[in-house]
Amino acid sequence: MSRLAQTKIAIIGGTGDLGFGLAVRLAKAFEVTIGSRDLPRATEAAAKAGAIARVRVEAKANRDAARACDIAVLAIPDLPSDDLLESLAPNLTEKLVISPIVPMLFKNGVFSISNSGESAAERVAKALPKADVAGAFHTVPAPKLAQLDEALDYDVLVTADSREVFAKASRVVAAVGKLRPLYAGPLTVSRMVEAMTPALLNVSRLNKLDNPSIKLV
Amino acid sequence: MSRLAQTKIAIIGGTGDLGFGLAVRLAKAFEVTIGSRDLPRATEAAAKAGAIARVRVEAKANRDAARACDIAVLAIPDLPSDDLLESLAPNLTEKLVISPIVPMLFKNGVFSISNSGESAAERVAKALPKADVAGAFHTVPAPKLAQLDEALDYDVLVTADSREVFAKASRVVAAVGKLRPLYAGPLTVSRMVEAMTPALLNVSRLNKLDNPSIKLV
Repeated sequence: MSRLAQTKIAIIGGTGDLGFGLAVRLAKAFEVTIGSRDLPRATEAAAKAGAIARVRVEAKANRDAARACDIAVLAIPDLPSDDLLESLAPNLTEKLVISPIVPMLFKNGVFSISNSGESAAERVAKALPKADVAGAFHTVPAPKLAQLDEALDYDVLVTADSREVFAKASRVVAAVGKLRPLYAGPLTVSRMVEAMTPALLNVSRLNKLDNPSIKLV
Repeated sequence: MSRLAQTKIAIIGGTGDLGFGLAVRLAKAFEVTIGSRDLPRATEAAAKAGAIARVRVEAKANRDAARACDIAVLAIPDLPSDDLLESLAPNLTEKLVISPIVPMLFKNGVFSISNSGESAAERVAKALPKADVAGAFHTVPAPKLAQLDEALDYDVLVTADSREVFAKASRVVAAVGKLRPLYAGPLTVSRMVEAMTPALLNVSRLNKLDNPSIKLV
């Protein structure tokens, strides 16, 4: 078993599209545990993800998954609740925590950012002051993650308050398809990076594109 | 002379990098006038742009350029002043007005959006209620516009409150290199589209990329 494979990644909220897809992809390179509020749902998703990835994927309740991991991905569809963050905080001390969270609204046919000013990644970092928080994966199309024949030749903008945290997050990003991690600056830049997702979703919907992502050219 | 060539485009603030580059590119397809607060500067820029494009480029004071045009591009580096918008308003009634404006700050090594909430395009639309306002060109690297050997094979997200205005703006976008106009939704989406520019600039700076733009893939 490679050194990389001994690193344990918890996908908190790993039963949603993004979390499930990341579990499938990351299981090739890491020991992956799918976390959920609901253990039976986590178990079911882990079995499915493991079958696609052809390696074992574990299942745990969110808090237990956080406790056992080296790295956590908060693959939840909206801003995490204070309760969830409080329950995770003591279990994520000095661990890398990746936020792909984009708080969004869909109203009158238009996707937009639902929070004002502060990004999800900044909110997570405030609630987990002892964790190393990075923002990443915002523009990776969730449905394509679980399709292993998709090369995922995209660029991923990564925010983090230090190059060290960026480097750690990059290792996770680069383990997913052909994704190229690019450092986008400190967590304050997450506001701009998170806003790319609703922009992309609007463009996709209005121009009938199939789950587009981005490349810098 | 083609029909297209009879359409008059005023590049308001056409002496800056973006305006100058757009003048060079658009002069191939439209009758272009560079506008400036300062007529001698407009004249100098127009002579330079004309020499690169090898067609005549006119020069006028901003207000006169607006009065004489069919389409105006507000190529100004920051939010337009109320004075400028008031002086332009009566001259832009029922005309297409394109806003490539991205209000930005550069502080502690980080580019960010400097306004909160309302986008530049929405602000322009409010100040020019009788014009057809579209947001476009935000992610096109200004320095590459004046280099005619650059293909500019990029995607351009266009915001507008109707498909009709989008279609008119698309004609202008598509006249610049290989740019592909994509409809991103109403002007309220401009907040998200304008935020892509500082995100790109941070990525460019931190990863030593050469004036990157984006493609949806």
